[in-house]
Amino acid sequence: MVSEDTNENRPKAVVLLSGGLDSMVCTALAQEQGFRVLALTIDYNQRHRIELESAKVIARRLGVERHVILPLDLRQFGGSALTAEIDVPKDGLGDDIPVTYVPARNLVFLSLALAWAEAAGSSDLFIGVNALDYSGYPDCRPEFIAAFEYLASLATRAGVEGRPLRIWAPLQHLTKAGIIRVGLDLGLDYGLTHSCYDPGPGGRPCGRCDSCQLRARGFAEAGVADPLLFPGA
Amino acid sequence: MVSEDTNENRPKAVVLLSGGLDSMVCTALAQEQGFRVLALTIDYNQRHRIELESAKVIARRLGVERHVILPLDLRQFGGSALTAEIDVPKDGLGDDIPVTYVPARNLVFLSLALAWAEAAGSSDLFIGVNALDYSGYPDCRPEFIAAFEYLASLATRAGVEGRPLRIWAPLQHLTKAGIIRVGLDLGLDYGLTHSCYDPGPGGRPCGRCDSCQLRARGFAEAGVADPLLFPGA
Repeated sequence: MVSEDTNENRPKAVVLLSGGLDSMVCTALAQEQGFRVLALTIDYNQRHRIELESAKVIARRLGVERHVILPLDLRQFGGSALTAEIDVPKDGLGDDIPVTYVPARNLVFLSLALAWAEAAGSSDLFIGVNALDYSGYPDCRPEFIAAFEYLASLATRAGVEGRPLRIWAPLQHLTKAGIIRVGLDLGLDYGLTHSCYDPGPGGRPCGRCDSCQLRARGFAEAGVADPLLFPGA
Repeated sequence: MVSEDTNENRPKAVVLLSGGLDSMVCTALAQEQGFRVLALTIDYNQRHRIELESAKVIARRLGVERHVILPLDLRQFGGSALTAEIDVPKDGLGDDIPVTYVPARNLVFLSLALAWAEAAGSSDLFIGVNALDYSGYPDCRPEFIAAFEYLASLATRAGVEGRPLRIWAPLQHLTKAGIIRVGLDLGLDYGLTHSCYDPGPGGRPCGRCDSCQLRARGFAEAGVADPLLFPGA
């Protein structure tokens, strides 16, 4: 019997999928690398919960193997404009860590991705963090990702048994325009994504929060129209 | 005006409280150190959910400042006898990591504790892990706790701003008997705690799972009767 490269032979990876542009590109890159994708979306009772709908649509469109939307009510802790009654700033990016930072969010999300990966027999996690065109969140920095990779092995059965966990952050050193170009090469439709922190009725982007501004600048630099704003372009 | 050491002047600590014996001692030790305790219990849809009732009673009895029971359905991932339809072993402790190990549980729990700590302006986390009389879980080892402390600072605003986070694991190097003695010195009532992984009706301990056996051995070595089994003693 000839061993075939069936779907079941390919390794699994857990990918954090928020419903934003970066995580869509990250999911597609995991598939491009040959992984069967287990997509994990956290419903943390975020202000922009509408991104969960985008995550569902993206997971279906990309044909991931399984998609879990896990409820985790971070409003119980508060401490962020995304999880408490604090206004989302609309006055541009500053030098400080902005109030949209959610305490320890990426650590919590990566830990949950790791929990699923280990239960599913996967050794690979993907996260679409980016350390160039970003809001200055501490948990997007490369040194955080590297330290998490080390901790992941210490924390788990896999690590103890000598099967190290790998954390993939393929967008880490790309500009937003670079990320957009990568996704366009993969044929992605960014009209399915949601980025705004403070959407209006029907999920309409505010156009002024950090996330909207980073997205607009990225599309401008990439020299293409954002299909979310210009559906016909 | 004389500055008084009011309740509000004391620093806050987030303490992971499962409802078991170790976490009760850990909570009391945090108070003994002068911290106002924010107690965090995770309802991860565990087989022994009855421990949540013990956590509530303990939090009330010890007079913690706030107690949050956070739902987080780890059954979505499975992979453990505590979160999937896998039998809890009753044949004694072996050398391998047992099936009661829940993938990445302590990492997930510490991450959530850190999220709350940061939102609440606290720099101190307590966890009642123990590396002597334990089941061999990788995420109870001192090297895991030390690596998490390092990561906690990288992951958060506090760390970036030069306010390092401290992870306290005061039971780490104690035997179970030693832990029991510490709690007795603090006047704790272990009749309020729950340890069994596979309780019968009314929460009755099975007496044979790893957790029951470790508890029994601890009380035997400490030379005292377990008030859960001998309420009159």
